[in-house]
Amino acid sequence: MIETKDSGGVVLFDDGDHRFIWLGADNHGKRGVVQTMQYLIIDKGRGMLLDPGGVHLFPRVVSAASRFISIDKIDTIFFSHQDPDVSSGIALWLGVTTAKIYIADLWIRFIPHFGIVDQARIVSVESSGKSIRLPSGAELLFVPTHYMHSPAAWSLFDKRAGIIFTGDVGAAAFPDGEEYLFVEDFQKHVKYIEGFHKRLINSNTVARHWVDNVRRLGPSMIAPQHGAVYKDGAVAAFLDWLSALKCGIDDIDTLYRM
Amino acid sequence: MIETKDSGGVVLFDDGDHRFIWLGADNHGKRGVVQTMQYLIIDKGRGMLLDPGGVHLFPRVVSAASRFISIDKIDTIFFSHQDPDVSSGIALWLGVTTAKIYIADLWIRFIPHFGIVDQARIVSVESSGKSIRLPSGAELLFVPTHYMHSPAAWSLFDKRAGIIFTGDVGAAAFPDGEEYLFVEDFQKHVKYIEGFHKRLINSNTVARHWVDNVRRLGPSMIAPQHGAVYKDGAVAAFLDWLSALKCGIDDIDTLYRM
Repeated sequence: MIETKDSGGVVLFDDGDHRFIWLGADNHGKRGVVQTMQYLIIDKGRGMLLDPGGVHLFPRVVSAASRFISIDKIDTIFFSHQDPDVSSGIALWLGVTTAKIYIADLWIRFIPHFGIVDQARIVSVESSGKSIRLPSGAELLFVPTHYMHSPAAWSLFDKRAGIIFTGDVGAAAFPDGEEYLFVEDFQKHVKYIEGFHKRLINSNTVARHWVDNVRRLGPSMIAPQHGAVYKDGAVAAFLDWLSALKCGIDDIDTLYRM
Repeated sequence: MIETKDSGGVVLFDDGDHRFIWLGADNHGKRGVVQTMQYLIIDKGRGMLLDPGGVHLFPRVVSAASRFISIDKIDTIFFSHQDPDVSSGIALWLGVTTAKIYIADLWIRFIPHFGIVDQARIVSVESSGKSIRLPSGAELLFVPTHYMHSPAAWSLFDKRAGIIFTGDVGAAAFPDGEEYLFVEDFQKHVKYIEGFHKRLINSNTVARHWVDNVRRLGPSMIAPQHGAVYKDGAVAAFLDWLSALKCGIDDIDTLYRM
């Protein structure tokens, strides 16, 4: 269970100038709707949201973020990919902030189907160099996550916090009421991530390429968009498990049987 | 160019009881927004929409469909996958019809992020057998299209009309004003489909599995969600081209270079 005191958000990293915050759980989530996790980075008083979520989450997320920062100080929003649970609230966020949105180039022509008009505020990750530099000098590195599942997806590694935000990678689907914030026992956690990863991650080849890059970065936490945050021993345990996973088109004959 | 007389819709197949209709183009489309194509099947007076599109298309599509059928007679909506350009209008369609929505099981928990509430009207393709049977006896066959690009996607083959609706497969991105409805010269068409397919289709392995199934079905037309409709010689030309395409993770080392 996520304790009530934590449901309004938990600071995962804080060194004074730079904070990485998990924005809390929707304890009153609807059954049958995939739960999502949002994160807020605050760097020298400026805010950045990671996958702030779909339209119906907007009231909760805007309220959670406002406990940590004035909403008008949020100047950057990062979308790992184009799915509705990630980005369907985009028009609302553009309305209440002056933030720029970072998303993979491939999705820029699709995002207006959520009802946006001002494309001048949408920036492609591919055109932005290898990273985003924040006011404190902290660097957020773009990490290729293509075909896991989206054909164009990016993780974001906060070098200063040592936390990588991974979008769908590492995501868990918990039974109602069984949610927890940190993965304490990876072997017990596998049952909540296995089905999701076997279908969403395109193949073992892709998984291994991603794991190789992430191991080189050496994050102390892995923060996905659904489920729970990996820290301590769970980080390496998850990477080992993922790099060995048979998934996606590794079983294509079954998937394409008619 | 698509002629003005066609922009309100073109009947692609009609045998009296059963019609397959292309619902026309958005001639006043916004620059920089991917154009989409919608289709309507009318069978013995009952309507079925294929990928009716995002929120901002709703007024045009509802108006186009109403030229062929009373909106309250639309009882089925099929979504090939979960992207916003395909399905972000879902709440509006649920509002103006009593239709059931068919979509891949994987996306049922994601679709509520577009703002839907009544999940009783969402049906998973996987739970529906191999096909949908229409009042005339016509059969619509589900064709696996996973990882092209969505991890869970379906094409729909209308056996009676001989037309396969393919979602993103076969999709073209035209320069503004260069749109046409039918692919007349496949070799000239390649430049509008190549970039899209190289990135969105997961790999040549997947493409070949899909092509093998589709060749066995022998469609006379291929109707994608973007671009133009393939008929006559363009059908085989497209299938030959796709089955030989190197795409997606076939070039993974480049995609994952950091």
